[in-house]
Amino acid sequence: MNAEFIKPFIASFINVLLTMAQTELKPGEALEKVDSKACGDVSGLIGMIGDDIKGSLSITFEESLALDIMHKMLGEKPTSVDDDVQDMVGEVVNMVCGGAKSTLAETSQEFGMATPIVVFGKNHTINHQVDGAKLVMPFTSEAGKAYLEICFNK
Amino acid sequence: MNAEFIKPFIASFINVLLTMAQTELKPGEALEKVDSKACGDVSGLIGMIGDDIKGSLSITFEESLALDIMHKMLGEKPTSVDDDVQDMVGEVVNMVCGGAKSTLAETSQEFGMATPIVVFGKNHTINHQVDGAKLVMPFTSEAGKAYLEICFNK
Repeated sequence: MNAEFIKPFIASFINVLLTMAQTELKPGEALEKVDSKACGDVSGLIGMIGDDIKGSLSITFEESLALDIMHKMLGEKPTSVDDDVQDMVGEVVNMVCGGAKSTLAETSQEFGMATPIVVFGKNHTINHQVDGAKLVMPFTSEAGKAYLEICFNK
Repeated sequence: MNAEFIKPFIASFINVLLTMAQTELKPGEALEKVDSKACGDVSGLIGMIGDDIKGSLSITFEESLALDIMHKMLGEKPTSVDDDVQDMVGEVVNMVCGGAKSTLAETSQEFGMATPIVVFGKNHTINHQVDGAKLVMPFTSEAGKAYLEICFNK
C-alpha cells in the first residue's frame, strides 16, 4: 500500500487525539504482516468505497486509554466503557477517517465513508478481510495503547 | 427503516446458510430499539455506501454456531475460532450483503460494499453508530444463535 495513502490517516489520528483530548500518541513500528491483528477492548470501524478502491479502517483502544480520553474531553472519568465512551470511539474513528479523506481528496484519491461501527469486548481481535495490502500501526500514550489498522484492495 | 429494504438481507442470510452449510435459521422477533445491541463471539461487519444512503451490516455468531457451520462446510470441526473460521465469517457477511445488493439494485436502491471486517472475542457487543433506523434480528439454529444487525442513515 502506498505510504502517501497511509500517512494522512496516521496524521489525522494523532491530530484528533491531540486537539480533542490533549492526548499525545507516539507511533510505533508499522506491521505489514498479513497475519497481524489489532487487539484491544473497544474499537471503532468504518468502511470506505471509492470509484476504483474499497477498504476499511479500524482504531482499537485499550480500555484505560478510552476512559482517559473521555476524562480529558468531559472532565469526569467513567468507570467502564459505557454507551457514551462507545459513541466517543465511533466519533473519533469518523473524524480520523474524515480528516484523511479531506487530505487525500486534494491529491490523489476520493472515497466515501460508511457509518461507523463500535465493538466492545475484552481483548477482541480485528481482522480485515482484504486481498490487498494491510497495515497495523501501534501507538502508545501515557494512558495505554491504541492500534490503527487500515487496508485497501489495491 | 423500510421493511422492503430489510427483507432482502434477512432472506439472503437464511439462503446463504442453507445452501452453503445446510443450516436452517429460524428468525426471531426483530428489535428496533435504539439501545439494542447484538452480542456474540465472532462477527462479520461490512460498510455500505450509495449515492444518497450509507449504512452498515453485521452478522454476529455464537462460537458453537460458527464452528458448526465450518464443520458442515468442510467436514472437519475446528476446536476454536481460528483464522479459517474468521475468513468464513467474513465470506458469509460478504455473500449475504452481495445477495441483498443484487435484489435491491433491481427494485429500489443501489449501493457499494466496503471490504468485510471480522471481530473475534468472547461476548463482544456490536454498536452501529447511525442517526437513522436500526434493526437487530435474532436467529436461532440447532447449533446456536446469530444476530443480523443492519442500519442506514435514512
